Amino acid sequence: MSADPAGTDPRPPGDRAIDTHRLEGFSDGVLAVIITIMAFQLKAPVTADLHGLAALWPSLLVYALSFSMIGIYWNNHHHLLRATRRISAAVMWANLFLLFWLSLIPFATAWVGTSHGHALPAATYGAIALAAALAYFALVRAILRANPDDTGIVAAVGRDTKGIASPVIYATGIGLAFVDPYLAYACYLSVSVLWFIPDRRLTRTT
Amino acid sequence: MSADPAGTDPRPPGDRAIDTHRLEGFSDGVLAVIITIMAFQLKAPVTADLHGLAALWPSLLVYALSFSMIGIYWNNHHHLLRATRRISAAVMWANLFLLFWLSLIPFATAWVGTSHGHALPAATYGAIALAAALAYFALVRAILRANPDDTGIVAAVGRDTKGIASPVIYATGIGLAFVDPYLAYACYLSVSVLWFIPDRRLTRTT
Amino acid sequence: MSADPAGTDPRPPGDRAIDTHRLEGFSDGVLAVIITIMAFQLKAPVTADLHGLAALWPSLLVYALSFSMIGIYWNNHHHLLRATRRISAAVMWANLFLLFWLSLIPFATAWVGTSHGHALPAATYGAIALAAALAYFALVRAILRANPDDTGIVAAVGRDTKGIASPVIYATGIGLAFVDPYLAYACYLSVSVLWFIPDRRLTRTT
Amino acid sequence: MSADPAGTDPRPPGDRAIDTHRLEGFSDGVLAVIITIMAFQLKAPVTADLHGLAALWPSLLVYALSFSMIGIYWNNHHHLLRATRRISAAVMWANLFLLFWLSLIPFATAWVGTSHGHALPAATYGAIALAAALAYFALVRAILRANPDDTGIVAAVGRDTKGIASPVIYATGIGLAFVDPYLAYACYLSVSVLWFIPDRRLTRTT
Repeated sequence: MSADPAGTDPRPPGDRAIDTHRLEGFSDGVLAVIITIMAFQLKAPVTADLHGLAALWPSLLVYALSFSMIGIYWNNHHHLLRATRRISAAVMWANLFLLFWLSLIPFATAWVGTSHGHALPAATYGAIALAAALAYFALVRAILRANPDDTGIVAAVGRDTKGIASPVIYATGIGLAFVDPYLAYACYLSVSVLWFIPDRRLTRTT
Repeated sequence: MSADPAGTDPRPPGDRAIDTHRLEGFSDGVLAVIITIMAFQLKAPVTADLHGLAALWPSLLVYALSFSMIGIYWNNHHHLLRATRRISAAVMWANLFLLFWLSLIPFATAWVGTSHGHALPAATYGAIALAAALAYFALVRAILRANPDDTGIVAAVGRDTKGIASPVIYATGIGLAFVDPYLAYACYLSVSVLWFIPDRRLTRTT
Repeated sequence: MSADPAGTDPRPPGDRAIDTHRLEGFSDGVLAVIITIMAFQLKAPVTADLHGLAALWPSLLVYALSFSMIGIYWNNHHHLLRATRRISAAVMWANLFLLFWLSLIPFATAWVGTSHGHALPAATYGAIALAAALAYFALVRAILRANPDDTGIVAAVGRDTKGIASPVIYATGIGLAFVDPYLAYACYLSVSVLWFIPDRRLTRTT
Repeated sequence: MSADPAGTDPRPPGDRAIDTHRLEGFSDGVLAVIITIMAFQLKAPVTADLHGLAALWPSLLVYALSFSMIGIYWNNHHHLLRATRRISAAVMWANLFLLFWLSLIPFATAWVGTSHGHALPAATYGAIALAAALAYFALVRAILRANPDDTGIVAAVGRDTKGIASPVIYATGIGLAFVDPYLAYACYLSVSVLWFIPDRRLTRTT
């Protein structure tokens, strides 16, 4: 029932790839449920006219923002783990910690959707996004520690300006939420745009 | 934390197949949640008699229609990616874009189910289905661009009459929704029938 | 965008195993969501005393029954597809058809749980279970047609007495639901017991 | 339709690894849905002020506790099955039994979250956690029986003090729930801490 003690794994090293696969599989499952369950929180309007649909626009827009955020995490997670050969217990916990914060995004999304224009939901959304960004940062560090000699990962995360900029922008958004929630939304949106644009450059080479 | 820059992937090309697997795995996860969560929106009737069940028929029929639509997307997605060797960042974003629109199908399904016979829910359902069909079209193009020399994919999507007919029929349905919602439903159903029938022909050969 | 036409698949036959994997992966995803979402329908009692918990017993028991049914389907599906080498379009549609009926089990479970002792919910539960059993039967036939020379599958499904007994018992239960719903529940439970017992015999050999 | 009878499996022994993969995949799917669906039960506050958020704290804390519990099960399950070569029908049923109890954790989490400080929800939470711990114990035994000569698994679960301590602490928590529910929460939390700490020691070696 305990985790595999050092050195008792009877399998050849080649089988270790299964580790990465299952970590990816579980993460994909959680991310897939998170991304879909948010759409489930979009309740069908009680009236079948434009007023019913119009009342949903804020929720739809926040959903689109959160969908893009989770989609970007999935994409980055995918590239990060594709370059990873060895995972450690610290990697598994850091990954779970990341999933924990991401699992709270649907809650924040629903709150901002139904209470848009209010400071506290906007700040809460940013706080959860900030915690997720820091957890992702911790995951990258844990993977680097578990693969000290792997230049591929180092190269992949080397110029990590976006990884540092994201939490800074989220933290700024939390502060701005108490000035004007729409400034906070703009901050959160800019993080998604930041991640989305440069990946286009890689279209033909990844 | 950034996506894998060109040329730094330390793995041999054979490992790239993992990419396709994870894209498929994540998409399957999202589609599985979408297809199941729609059934979850079928609330148990409050009364245990035929009136309770009869009130559910519209919701059940729309659910069956949406289930067939998602099932067809899963089937086509499966065949498309089975023939795909290389994926690019554009493929990943196009795939996420497709999943975004499909994730809104449960919302549209619930709205049509509870407000059947109304124009706006019927048109909204068609608009989301149209957006998904266009996203699928974009996904096919992105895959073709990422695999320029792969005759297998070209052959698989070459005679793409159904891929062009589907958005046209959905667009027609959106317009007809404001004439008679049931004509719109007939349009949406005919797309499912269109995709379902010819695949039967492939039973022994696929 | 169309399914892979005969003969255009550029991959060697060995790659076809990926087909089975993705069919299994998607089915597992749907079954995992179905089995978990039923538990989500168990609403936390509004009171924190024994009355609150006591009111939940019928729902809990029906949940356990449905969980065992889905678990048995997953187990049989697993063994069936493990023995399968080739899948066809008919197999994919039959599998989707099976998943469609199983996806309605949470709905039936919720209805029986909140309206236990009533005839119609009990009969509806049986009707959905019967449709799923017939869909499974169709899936087995489709797999046999797609693998005409595979003695492994033939051997695996050869003495298919349970596969024939199950729909008969479900049909009996539907009829008995209008006499006494508890007789119907007993029928449905007996199908689960029927499947559960003999598998024990295989403990050491599977 | 029946499970694979002894000896009829036409595949070479190497293919048996697929078994473990699908058992892991299905379990991961169920655990991913369980862990995410709990967060979905955190309803967005109706008011957009601190009172709304403050009322959610108990639910958030119980969610974090349950998330850590499911995460630990996933981690242990991962290590256990990584060391497993052969699975039997008993393993599959024991695994389903474990998933059954874990699938009730969201229900218990929601109840404790909305009725914190009450004895019965706290005891119910502990009873479900205890049942899951015993099911995990049964799963370990079933795997050991199916792999009698595998020293790797024996080594991995040999010093299973935590596996024995967990149910004892859960049982103690159930009793203490009727004295002071907060003592019960402390017991449940201590099990998570117990499992979390030593795994850190394995960071570099797993």
